[in-house]
Amino acid sequence: MKENGWIERISLSIRPPSLEDNRGDLDRLLFSIRPIVGDCKIDMPLDLISKIPNFLRSYHYKTDILYFKDDNILKIIDLFPAGFNLPLYGIAIDLGTSNIALSLIDIVKGKEIYFQNILNPQIKVGPDILSRIHFAEDNRKLAELQEMVIDAINREIEDMIHKIGIKREHLVGMSVAGNTTMSHLFLSLDPHWICREPYIPCANRFPILRAKELGIFINQNAPVFIFPNVGSYLGGDIISGIFSLGLEGSERLFCFIDVGTNAEIVIGSREWMIGCAGAAGPALEGGVGNIGMMAGKGVIDRISYDANEDRFKIHLIGEGSPKGLCGSAMIDLISELFLYGFLDERGRFVKERCKERLEYREDEIRFFILRPGEFYSLNEGLYITQAEVDSLIRSKAAMYTILRTITKMLDIDFNDIHRFYIAGSFGSYMNPRSAINIGMLPDIPIERFKVCGNTSLEGAKRLFFERDGIRRIYSIRDNITYVELNVNQEFMNLFSGAKFLPHTDISLFPSVKKRLSSVLR
Amino acid sequence: MKENGWIERISLSIRPPSLEDNRGDLDRLLFSIRPIVGDCKIDMPLDLISKIPNFLRSYHYKTDILYFKDDNILKIIDLFPAGFNLPLYGIAIDLGTSNIALSLIDIVKGKEIYFQNILNPQIKVGPDILSRIHFAEDNRKLAELQEMVIDAINREIEDMIHKIGIKREHLVGMSVAGNTTMSHLFLSLDPHWICREPYIPCANRFPILRAKELGIFINQNAPVFIFPNVGSYLGGDIISGIFSLGLEGSERLFCFIDVGTNAEIVIGSREWMIGCAGAAGPALEGGVGNIGMMAGKGVIDRISYDANEDRFKIHLIGEGSPKGLCGSAMIDLISELFLYGFLDERGRFVKERCKERLEYREDEIRFFILRPGEFYSLNEGLYITQAEVDSLIRSKAAMYTILRTITKMLDIDFNDIHRFYIAGSFGSYMNPRSAINIGMLPDIPIERFKVCGNTSLEGAKRLFFERDGIRRIYSIRDNITYVELNVNQEFMNLFSGAKFLPHTDISLFPSVKKRLSSVLR
Repeated sequence: MKENGWIERISLSIRPPSLEDNRGDLDRLLFSIRPIVGDCKIDMPLDLISKIPNFLRSYHYKTDILYFKDDNILKIIDLFPAGFNLPLYGIAIDLGTSNIALSLIDIVKGKEIYFQNILNPQIKVGPDILSRIHFAEDNRKLAELQEMVIDAINREIEDMIHKIGIKREHLVGMSVAGNTTMSHLFLSLDPHWICREPYIPCANRFPILRAKELGIFINQNAPVFIFPNVGSYLGGDIISGIFSLGLEGSERLFCFIDVGTNAEIVIGSREWMIGCAGAAGPALEGGVGNIGMMAGKGVIDRISYDANEDRFKIHLIGEGSPKGLCGSAMIDLISELFLYGFLDERGRFVKERCKERLEYREDEIRFFILRPGEFYSLNEGLYITQAEVDSLIRSKAAMYTILRTITKMLDIDFNDIHRFYIAGSFGSYMNPRSAINIGMLPDIPIERFKVCGNTSLEGAKRLFFERDGIRRIYSIRDNITYVELNVNQEFMNLFSGAKFLPHTDISLFPSVKKRLSSVLR
Repeated sequence: MKENGWIERISLSIRPPSLEDNRGDLDRLLFSIRPIVGDCKIDMPLDLISKIPNFLRSYHYKTDILYFKDDNILKIIDLFPAGFNLPLYGIAIDLGTSNIALSLIDIVKGKEIYFQNILNPQIKVGPDILSRIHFAEDNRKLAELQEMVIDAINREIEDMIHKIGIKREHLVGMSVAGNTTMSHLFLSLDPHWICREPYIPCANRFPILRAKELGIFINQNAPVFIFPNVGSYLGGDIISGIFSLGLEGSERLFCFIDVGTNAEIVIGSREWMIGCAGAAGPALEGGVGNIGMMAGKGVIDRISYDANEDRFKIHLIGEGSPKGLCGSAMIDLISELFLYGFLDERGRFVKERCKERLEYREDEIRFFILRPGEFYSLNEGLYITQAEVDSLIRSKAAMYTILRTITKMLDIDFNDIHRFYIAGSFGSYMNPRSAINIGMLPDIPIERFKVCGNTSLEGAKRLFFERDGIRRIYSIRDNITYVELNVNQEFMNLFSGAKFLPHTDISLFPSVKKRLSSVLR
């Protein structure tokens, strides 16, 4: 038995009743647990209590008991016959604004056995957090948003159960990491004040619920743990990321960056942590015009310019025709366009350089990455518009400005930071060099960047492998001081300069300056 | 504010949020409770959490919080605007096998304001506990029994709400005292093993549930406290009775007797308590043939024989034609029939003495208490059959034998017992002298008997007036040693003698012997 996460199991052998020992079955069972778990309150759901008498008599008073600890309360999940090779599973979820990632964990064998990534169906009411909050204004619609997500999760679980052939009641726990708004909508908690000054969430720490309370079709008494938030714009996904990397124990200064529609940042070490967030726009999560899309089959994730052949080389996820660019390729593209002189410092296309790649329409300016017919089966070609470039530049400017603001506030230099962890759903593909070139990340030695992928999902998974996980998660939460940037004047001042490529103050990006001078423009 | 029971209230003034203090609304609220309630876990239902943000902003961050304590967990019931003259109510229920008594308590003013007694609708599947347990064999039917009771309670609550004009959400707590089987059925807990050796209930101590978990239509987060049992045949109604009288603190030996279909007895003092129970049959709860009925309008509750006029004098509850006799009148009747020679020591009608009052039918022997036409509008007269007499004699014999068995086991004399408390739904009308005459209660000085009425309901009510009530109730439960009489050989031996009037050994009833010799038979 390898399970060592937040779901615990004990095997009990209980003294059968007799005329001399006529305690009730529940009382008898609890009495047997006591010496093992100590003096904590035990919470046994009513439906389990009702199950006990026949269960004990059927299995000769031997039982495996599954439970989890909620502070000093031991909460029973289920009783299973003892001594069988019981399969037990947990579900870890990264609840993103755009994507929901689900991972099925075999908690006995201690490994992930299935993974699925689906669109967050709430997207149909709006792509970003704000549109969802506005939609949720009336209670019926708030419940509707919750239903969308729960239904989608239930469908995926249904699918898993059939594909892998497991029993629903063996799904005994769920961990959910999402940003503050997503967590609120998951629980149907009023998000109204999240986006209004002074930006107060309904709750930062949520109760651990039972699956039945949320209408999730796994073992009905399975606990659903929702990662706590630090604040309205620093959510459980970030806590989960830090937990997954163990950063709260870091001896040297780290900077954790989650890049998405919001850029969320935590800087610190085991001594202290400061967190902040700012809107970065949807550009990095595939929400830009026609070209930007989420990573997936047929999407370009890396791109480079071959000056000799005057040709963009693309790397496609899967096969087929390229449909668009995900965030990492967008950053590559802007970097190449800038380095090779297609874009100027203000992010405008340079007519003389772009030549026939540029097409002026009534409503937009198109730059052809792939000319019509250049890539087989892509008759229309592949282009990015000026508006799309502008949008990405605003996003990268926001990212850098947040980093700049918070380090200035802390009076530290970027070089003082030992390691930058880049997280976020698109983070696994991102090239930090490209991000430096466009002035999105600070110009420090490239080896200090660590691209980590979906750390929010990783943290949710890790809870199933770490006995003391919940306590650690809350302690991470409590140790992060949240700084509100939404109203920060310094941020506004710094933002203007960051809207240039890489920055109005090129001395901040010495390596880019050097590279620019060496590249044939 | 007078509320001092298990439902507690505090008034909070909470610091409004600001950019400098951006804690979540829930976290902010809990922070304000902390200094007042100390270091215990606080449990706030999800629907209340969702209510907090708008509530706090609407009421200027001032709120009254209603909660109860479940061990070391503080459980929130609701938030109300502070400073209003808030009416708050609790419902106390005696959940009897035959009757359900409901009391509405104004917990602010500290008094009962409404009372209702209804039939337990489960009667339609059978009059006694055994028939209910057999009916509940399959889970669907178990749920059906639960539904019957919950529906009946909901209907009464609906009625109260309209009659008295109160708001449903101001009904903030419920306490329920019933015997072990009734409590199990109330919670839909499997009662199968209660009536099978070695007589083990599913649970003796129940979780405190929220109204919504049971489908009870009061404030949805109102707690429902169910009195714990000592064993399968010593239930929460008895614990409630002892709690209502404060007997667990008694310096001198007491004997608490609940007379119903089962006779339940607790003997003890503040040093120790012993409890036991035995089947007494339905005779004392109105379940005998045609004549026996529950106390109510048109039912005779006292009866005596006037030897001079050769006439039975009756006392009727309410007005109208007498429909039958309740338990207390049955005991009076048998006592008078025996004292005046209509019944012999074996409980047989004496033909020569009864004369024309006796009527031999093919299938039964009838003794006319009121001859046809003797009482206006009662053309058929009022009679008791030999079978009904036999049934009552078995009940009284069981009662006495239980008392005899337990005192012998404890090696004490009836005279060592300072006070006998007679409880049970019919207990409020019972004449202990009559009970002694027929050999149901021991022959000790009459002033030692205290007839207490429905102490089960009283205990349920008291919880709303006693802050420390729950702890006291559990401590009473834990301090009672339960003795199983269902398999007691001594009981069987003693039972035969007790089936006589008053007993085969008349020396046990010296006062009855004396009375017999003074009465004109």
